[in-house]
This record gives sequence, C-alpha cells and structure tokens, in this order.
Amino acid sequence: MTQAVRHDAMRARNLALVLGEVSARGSVTRAALAEITGLAKTTVSKLIADLIEAGLVVETGIVRAGERGRPGMEVQVSGLSVAAIGLEINVNYLAVHIVDLSRSIRLRRAQPVDNRLASPGDVIANLQHLALSTVDEAVDIGLRVVGGVLAVPGTVDLVTGTVRRAPNLGWRDVPLLSPLRMPFPMRVDNEANLAALGELWFGAGHRDFLHVSGEIGVGAGLVVRGELFRGFRGFAGELGHVVVSPGGPPCHCGGQGCLERYAGQDALLSAAGIAPSAPSSGPGQDAPSTPGRPGTGIAELLRRLEASDGDALAACERAGWALGIALTSAVNLIDPERIVLGGIYAPLFPWIGGVVTGTLTARLGEMREVVPSVEVSRLGTEAAPLGAAGQVIQQIIADPAGLLNA
Amino acid sequence: MTQAVRHDAMRARNLALVLGEVSARGSVTRAALAEITGLAKTTVSKLIADLIEAGLVVETGIVRAGERGRPGMEVQVSGLSVAAIGLEINVNYLAVHIVDLSRSIRLRRAQPVDNRLASPGDVIANLQHLALSTVDEAVDIGLRVVGGVLAVPGTVDLVTGTVRRAPNLGWRDVPLLSPLRMPFPMRVDNEANLAALGELWFGAGHRDFLHVSGEIGVGAGLVVRGELFRGFRGFAGELGHVVVSPGGPPCHCGGQGCLERYAGQDALLSAAGIAPSAPSSGPGQDAPSTPGRPGTGIAELLRRLEASDGDALAACERAGWALGIALTSAVNLIDPERIVLGGIYAPLFPWIGGVVTGTLTARLGEMREVVPSVEVSRLGTEAAPLGAAGQVIQQIIADPAGLLNA
Repeated sequence: MTQAVRHDAMRARNLALVLGEVSARGSVTRAALAEITGLAKTTVSKLIADLIEAGLVVETGIVRAGERGRPGMEVQVSGLSVAAIGLEINVNYLAVHIVDLSRSIRLRRAQPVDNRLASPGDVIANLQHLALSTVDEAVDIGLRVVGGVLAVPGTVDLVTGTVRRAPNLGWRDVPLLSPLRMPFPMRVDNEANLAALGELWFGAGHRDFLHVSGEIGVGAGLVVRGELFRGFRGFAGELGHVVVSPGGPPCHCGGQGCLERYAGQDALLSAAGIAPSAPSSGPGQDAPSTPGRPGTGIAELLRRLEASDGDALAACERAGWALGIALTSAVNLIDPERIVLGGIYAPLFPWIGGVVTGTLTARLGEMREVVPSVEVSRLGTEAAPLGAAGQVIQQIIADPAGLLNA
Repeated sequence: MTQAVRHDAMRARNLALVLGEVSARGSVTRAALAEITGLAKTTVSKLIADLIEAGLVVETGIVRAGERGRPGMEVQVSGLSVAAIGLEINVNYLAVHIVDLSRSIRLRRAQPVDNRLASPGDVIANLQHLALSTVDEAVDIGLRVVGGVLAVPGTVDLVTGTVRRAPNLGWRDVPLLSPLRMPFPMRVDNEANLAALGELWFGAGHRDFLHVSGEIGVGAGLVVRGELFRGFRGFAGELGHVVVSPGGPPCHCGGQGCLERYAGQDALLSAAGIAPSAPSSGPGQDAPSTPGRPGTGIAELLRRLEASDGDALAACERAGWALGIALTSAVNLIDPERIVLGGIYAPLFPWIGGVVTGTLTARLGEMREVVPSVEVSRLGTEAAPLGAAGQVIQQIIADPAGLLNA
C-alpha cells in the first residue's frame, strides 16, 4: 500500500466515523466530535469542512459553550443537497419517493396501474418516466439524487438485480437493472424486506419486529436487533405463502391454501364483493401528475366498512383470521418481539387488528406468557419505497468518501 | 485495575487464544502457535504447560520440523481428563451423555420411562440418580466432569433454569436448577435448540440448517452461519405448533391442528395402530443398566414398516405430508439452506423423507429455483444430549482460565 493510498483509506474511515456520529447524535459541535472520536480537533474541523462542501453536513446556527475551550457551532446532517430515491413496482401501482440525507421525505409520487396487464418492458418504461420526472422536480428544489433502490414484489437476485419469481406479476427471471437506465447507481430488492427496513428507519422506532406488508401479495420482513433477517438464499419472509389450509385454493406460487389466497388484497376485495382488479391508490400522493382520488379497491372497501357493510366486515374477519393462523406459525418459528401490520393492513387495522390478536392469543397464549403485540404501521404502503431510499442513505452515512471525491 | 488483575485478564485471554487455536487446528506445534497468535514462543510454552497441567491439552507424540528453529512436538486438545455431561428429560426417556474435551462421546446412558406419569420431583430424582451413577463411571475411566447442560422439551427461562411450558409433560413453571443437585455448574436449555447444536458440532458439518427434532413433541432449531437463532424471547423453533390444518385436532399447547398432532410420536404410533404410551428406546444404549431391547413404540413401528404393514406405511405417509406442510411454511418464512430430520425421524427417514421432499417440492418449487434439501441426521435422538454436553465444551474452549485456577 503506498502512502497516498493509506492516507485515502484513513481519510475515508475518518469521514465515515465523523458523519456517523453526526447522524446518530442529531446535532453536535466539532469539539464534542473530537472528544467522541478521539481525533484531533483540527482533523475534525477539516473533515467537517469537506463534508459541508460536499453538501452532507450543515451548520445548525446553534452555538454551544464547549466544556473546554471556545464555544462552537453545532453541525447536523444536511437535508439541503444530497438525496436518495426509492422506487417501487407493485402489482397495482408504481411509486417513487425522494428522501433527503436527513431522512425527510421530500417528494412522493404514485401511479395506480395494473402491472399484470403490461409487459415487464412497459412497466419498466413507465417507472423510468415517473422516476426521471420526479428527479427533475427534486433538482428544482435543490436536491441531488445520488442513488436509488427499486422494490419489487418477488424474490430477487441481489447481485444481478434480477427478479427471480414475482408470481403476482407473472414475472420469472426478469432483469431490471440494465433496462432501468437512471443517471445514478441503482439496486433491486424485495418489497417486503424493504418495507420492514422502512418501518425500522421511518416507523415507530422498534428494533425487533416482524413487519407484514399487505398488498396484492403478502410479504413479511423480520428485523432482529435492528438487522434484516434475509435467510440463506435471501428469500426469507414469504409470509404470503405460509400454509393456512393445506387443501385450500391454489395459489400463483404453485402451492395451495397460502395466506395470500385469504388475506391478499384480491382475495379480500373479492370476498367483500368488490371487483379485485381495480387499481388501488397505492402510496400517498401529493402531485398533480397522479390522480388525487383514491382507487376503487381498498378505498371502496374502507367506505363499506365504515358503513358497516356485512360482506365487507365478514371479508376482514376472514382475512384477519387467516393472518392470525399464518402469524401463529410465524411466532412459533421465529418468536418476534412484536408484529407490525403494514401495507393495506394499516388502513384496515381497525377491522382486522382485533381478529389477528384474538387468533394469536387463542392459539399461543397457553404456551407463551407473552404473545407478541400486534401494532399498526404508521407508514402503510409507503414503507417499501421509504426503506428503499433509506438503504441509500444508510450507505452514504456508512461510506461518504465516494461523494466527496466525485 | 491493579497490575495483578490486569495480568490475570491478559493470561485468561491468551489461554483462550491458544486453546482456541489448538481446538480449531486439531494438532499443532508450540512454534506454529507462536506464529499464529503473535505471542512470544516462551509465552506460548508457558501457557501450553499450564494447559497440559490442567488436563486440557496433551502432547501427541508427533514431532514436526519447524519452519524456523528446532523441531517441536505437536499438542492437541486432551480427551483424557476434562469432560462435560449432557442430560435430557424427554417425555418417554431420560438420557445422559458424557463427552470428553476432544468431543469424543465416552458414555451414554438412557432410561425409558413415561415421565408423564411421574411428578417433576420424581423425574428430577430419577435423572439425578442416572446422572450421578454415570459421573461415577466417568471417574472410573479417568474423566473429571466439570459442567453440564440439561435438555428439556419445552420453553425455558435460560437465566433461572426454569421450564416455562412443557405441554407434553404437562409442566408449567417448573424450576430445575436448584432441585437438581450436581457437583458442578449446570444450565437448562430447550431440547430442540440443543439438538440443533448437537447436529452442528457432532453431525454432518453443515453450518446453515433447520434441524427437526422428532419426539413425542416436535421441535426445531435454526442454525444460521454456525449460530443458533433463538428469537426475541428465546422461544423460536416451535415447529411442532406450526399450523398444519387450522380446524384440526386440539393440541396440548392450546392450539388446533398443530404439526405435533399429525407427526409427533404419539400421533404417528396411534395412526399406525400401535399403543402410543409405550416408552421407546430413546437414545442409543450400551450399558447394562439400561434395557438393551428397543422400546415397543418406534421399534415396533419400524418392524411393521419393514414388513410393509399398510397402516404403518399410511401413518408415515400422513406424518411426512404434515411435516412437509409445516416445513413449507418454515422455508417460506426463514429460508434455511437445508433441513436435517432428526430424533425419531432419523430411523423413520426411509419412509418419510420422500414424502417430505415431495410435498416441499410441489409447494415451493414454482417460487424457488432451489428447494432446501431434506437430509437425515446421523445422531437421531442423541443430538440433544450431545448438544448439551457440547455447549459445556464450547464454553471451556472459549474460557479455560477458570479450570486452571480451580
């Protein structure tokens, strides 16, 4: 290793060390950073100057008296410059979120569309159009998008960015990274895993939970001590294909009686007497480019539930029961601290949460003194694109040097 | 920290470092140890002398020419002195294994007995009698038992050593550590978890697997990169209570249609027309103190299977199917690299392995390119007491200082 290479490696490590502390502490003075990291004050000042110049850190304007020496101005992670994009292809919508480095959600765009009716190429072209126009809007408000992650409802080869199986889309071995041409590095990951990470980084602050992502498909992500559990091949968390009833209706996955056939969005709407193919609203929207009116699917179900429609109530009862059965198996196998219901189960929580808890308690209460609590996600269907953008933010905080040298 | 305390801490760390390398490498010279650890040769020689004196290490008699300097004699972990005891209370047997520090199984004793018919106090007294007589035998062959772990088929509070729930024994909040008076430190752990660790340390050498422990109850232990996954409260791996059919027969656990009701030993024997209460043979036996003849339960089932008895074959078919359903849910949730069938499923493997694999492939093959392989454990019902003794061995290797100072 030459001296220059060694110096670069040490600078990269120190940049990560300092930015990590700034991110973890919210706001902090240079003097405090020197004490925390053990680096010399002049070194910290130089690193902070570089991070400010690269737009990763800003001064807060708040001056703190130092424990020793002169008062100093606090710095914090900047929300003014660098940003990440989270994209989602789901069965019945496309979504794009832009999150700045301080983890504030800056732009959210969604497009209700039935992606089962289009070829993968068309879906990718639509997504690219939506993403690029959102990136343009980001530029208009002073943000520089430096990377993105795409969430898809299927098993994903993380190395190549290929969707292996997405039964609800009817996709098999669809490469996404090369066709999706974006002006920054992209990765692809499973929607339910990203939703769990979204809940970890943008949700209620829990560090041990099973996050259930209710969509047309049903997925889950297990977070253990703040880390995602992916399984040996990366395909853990397929809650939607846990067997609720072994002789039940056939599933797109090749199985029978899977949870999705009882509690997935199509099954739920169908049981409530609502045409299941109607695109739902997807994640929250605030742009004129997307229709402001809620889709006819889940929104219609919510209207009927509020009017105490018998079929709608019975459909939720049945879905909640099936979810309770699948989660009974999940709790027996993986023993999570708590269960967070997200996706469509977030707005439906008042009608399904009780049945889920009741089913779990009836089946688990004898064996376990504490049955995991069942909670509602604050993020609903936004969790996956937030987790996607959040992954990029995590990566920048962990290794900011690349953005400074660029 | 005084200088003496600091010296003791450093010596303890270096003893662990050196013994860890000896254990990992099988046999190695002092000179090689000095190179590997970076410690001075004289320090290594002193540490090895202490480990030899404490009976943890022996010279192999093999002299290797050093890369530099004089030839040296190799040392290895000693199987001649220090040993650990693994105990098991299961529903229909008690078992005791003694394993020496080199991980050789030295003594195995088992006692078929229906523990459902006795009070916890009587069960503990029986176990203590069996354990102490085995420890006496160990002394006779020159072994010194320094610690033990007790495996029980239920949820365990690891801190207090209390069995929380053992539905198949009908136990609830039964303290085991204080009533079980042994002349060395003891801990209590879940049988299925210990069986998985037994498979890890004494089995086929895999590091990522779900080990299924078939007994009267059915449990599982998930090993991820060589580490046991315990879940948030330590109660993960309750495969026996994964729901096979939500309206199925009621289970001791308070649930309904649990795997145990289809594939547990009682259910299996009952379906085959064999009285399920007959004690089975338990782990392998080689002592005159235990009846050499196989118990009438599983041994009778095996006899009938070998004679192609229709009921026996149908019972295995049904149990294998149910196991396949529960494992379909498990693979969807936790995505293990492979599945190892142990306990009673080991001898029954020829009659259930195929059905399990077939069920998994039919239900998972569409979603996954690779369905986890289903393999037979070499250890059968011995896995839990081996894992129990193995935990003590691991602990000694990781921190041998206590045995030297004693």
